[in-house]
Amino acid sequence: MSSELSPSPLAPARFPDLPAVAGVRLATSATGLRYKGRDDLLICEVIEGTTVAGTLTTSKTCSAAVDWCKKALVGGAARGLIVNSGNANAFTGKAGEQVVETCVSAVADQLACRPSRVFCASTGVIGQQLPAEAIVSHVGSAWARMEDSNADLWHKAAKAIMTTDTFAKGAGQTVKIGDADVHIAGIAKGSGMIAPDMATMLAFIFTDAALPAPLLQELFSPAVARSFNAITVDSDTSTSDTALLMATAAAPGQPSIASAEDPLLDDFRQALDAVLLDLAQQIVRDGEGATKFISITVTGAETDIAARRIGLSIANSPLVKTAIAGEDANWGRIVMAVGKSGEMADRDKLAIEIGGYAVARAGMAVDGFDETPVAAHMKNQEIDISVDVGIADGRATVWTCDLTHGYISINADYRS
Amino acid sequence: MSSELSPSPLAPARFPDLPAVAGVRLATSATGLRYKGRDDLLICEVIEGTTVAGTLTTSKTCSAAVDWCKKALVGGAARGLIVNSGNANAFTGKAGEQVVETCVSAVADQLACRPSRVFCASTGVIGQQLPAEAIVSHVGSAWARMEDSNADLWHKAAKAIMTTDTFAKGAGQTVKIGDADVHIAGIAKGSGMIAPDMATMLAFIFTDAALPAPLLQELFSPAVARSFNAITVDSDTSTSDTALLMATAAAPGQPSIASAEDPLLDDFRQALDAVLLDLAQQIVRDGEGATKFISITVTGAETDIAARRIGLSIANSPLVKTAIAGEDANWGRIVMAVGKSGEMADRDKLAIEIGGYAVARAGMAVDGFDETPVAAHMKNQEIDISVDVGIADGRATVWTCDLTHGYISINADYRS
Repeated sequence: MSSELSPSPLAPARFPDLPAVAGVRLATSATGLRYKGRDDLLICEVIEGTTVAGTLTTSKTCSAAVDWCKKALVGGAARGLIVNSGNANAFTGKAGEQVVETCVSAVADQLACRPSRVFCASTGVIGQQLPAEAIVSHVGSAWARMEDSNADLWHKAAKAIMTTDTFAKGAGQTVKIGDADVHIAGIAKGSGMIAPDMATMLAFIFTDAALPAPLLQELFSPAVARSFNAITVDSDTSTSDTALLMATAAAPGQPSIASAEDPLLDDFRQALDAVLLDLAQQIVRDGEGATKFISITVTGAETDIAARRIGLSIANSPLVKTAIAGEDANWGRIVMAVGKSGEMADRDKLAIEIGGYAVARAGMAVDGFDETPVAAHMKNQEIDISVDVGIADGRATVWTCDLTHGYISINADYRS
Repeated sequence: MSSELSPSPLAPARFPDLPAVAGVRLATSATGLRYKGRDDLLICEVIEGTTVAGTLTTSKTCSAAVDWCKKALVGGAARGLIVNSGNANAFTGKAGEQVVETCVSAVADQLACRPSRVFCASTGVIGQQLPAEAIVSHVGSAWARMEDSNADLWHKAAKAIMTTDTFAKGAGQTVKIGDADVHIAGIAKGSGMIAPDMATMLAFIFTDAALPAPLLQELFSPAVARSFNAITVDSDTSTSDTALLMATAAAPGQPSIASAEDPLLDDFRQALDAVLLDLAQQIVRDGEGATKFISITVTGAETDIAARRIGLSIANSPLVKTAIAGEDANWGRIVMAVGKSGEMADRDKLAIEIGGYAVARAGMAVDGFDETPVAAHMKNQEIDISVDVGIADGRATVWTCDLTHGYISINADYRS
């Protein structure tokens, strides 16, 4: 459990000061369901008129909460969110679906809204029944304590959704849309069972921008592809992965925006990308047992998608990840991982750089290769790998961490 | 290196007595290229008229030796084989191709045959130039010492092709084709960088059966699918994977066989399957750091291929493998791995057994689940997992090992 683990060596120095987002109110609570002496329940109210976009796990064994959110997203409107940690309510059959309905209805009752406007997520142990009463009995008191979002509350919210995380994860931005100041605040959790192509673990991002739901999804999907779907810790995909973006429209003085291509949105899009990427990279920095943060850039691939697949093949290779843990610039294993990706690569044009130093070119070790500067780079906490596969112009960057004894210790002992 | 590692706890008690295969002669030699005080070169002569079948890595960065074998297989005829361990001659550019031609030609000269009748394989470190002279200078003396295959020579041959293996791997059978006694002897190596769908590491199987090359391939391909392509250690695919089956036709008194469906081949097919499965399972038993041998049977899948993909998704999951290392019957991670496989599964019909005990049924934990017998099973060296995904009749069995601190230690320190 998180309390037993010391913070990741890759953790940021402190939780950032996230901006207040107009139209978002928060409260956290301690149910005592699994964790002692810490909050494990997050409840949010967003004002009438809030739009919502989301991406959810593609797992064929997804949780009841994921099924609920998929249906609720169709409406594009949100009024509330309820999240608990410690029990994922996954693989719990019809009873698990009932638990979702009970919890969501308890929030909808407070809001006097339709249940389909309330979103939910559960994270923690799979296969154990979640006693709805233990959650529902806290909704009323939490509601009474609810306050407008602020830096302190965001920090509490980020802590309440943690499981094996060793630090709370948040990122925020303030940008202009036209002349209006618009805010973005996001929190996330995740540490193991992290793999891409399936959204992420849990991430909730709020903004007071005024954006119709289809447009919000149009902004969110590509940003998720470049962030949460470009990270991997262990290639294992959660049954509960959920990323939601809610827009309250409550920042005053905003121009009306009808298209995602509107130039007025340029700064907002960049800020949203930055928040998602920051959160995604924080998840990698909290990868179970991680001691190195690894950036892998692939160029020269057939397409951008092919580049991402090659990058993830490298990022998921146990042999690459253990070599980096051992501070060994073993580029032969990178070659292997490119080869097994299934994507086009020209073995005899392949080039590899580590830490900016060429180690292989034209399909073989560089002439008179001096390993000294590369070996020095391998001792850093931040490792950079670039691979050009020599086919076309596709490119992508993905992020991962190393595979260490710490990962084995955490996962051979902890039932998650 | 192998000499530093103690034998796997899952190793067989002893190397089996493999039968003499008529028409096969062998010699081993120590080049001193990488390993001190052990043989690292294997040379085989097979008599005129020998047919050959093979499967090779699908890696896009395959080695020069793999490229050579792919071309040579087109002819369907073999006269010789040369294998070295310690240097994979992979990712070595044009120079690496030249090394293959030089080594193969040295053997072809001894046989006075075309080079395209000589097969080759190299295994070991990737990305280092292999000095051909160090190999070629041993061919003549090895040739002079060559003897008809026998139990002792098979054992020596299996040892000569080892790299990080902790034990030599062999399997053999003697069966009837019609009234003729026919022999099968196979050797293999492999321990890490083992993933399926791409043949295996190295495996060489010899028989004195009389079978035309297309028929031999027809027998070999499905047998490889059920054996070498149904195992995984770490999901990483070698650049050098090679499996070859050579048939000398030298056993006396054999009937003529024109079709793989001939009932006279039934016993031979079963024996060949048994030899390949035995070799494949020995590779899993020597998985780097392995302490548990895990059999995973998937039923109820859309097709047999879907069942195999689901099985491999479970077998490759770091979270499943670490849970088994920790002797934790964490079936929630099995659910997760089924879900991420991408194959059809009915979450609400999913059933899981561990060690023959039902742990989940109809998409949730079994009523009144008693973990005691399951926990006892988890302490065994041999772990059995069965999953029914509730869709149709597809089924498959795959094999893997657990993921332990030993894997991390071996791969964070050893440059392979």
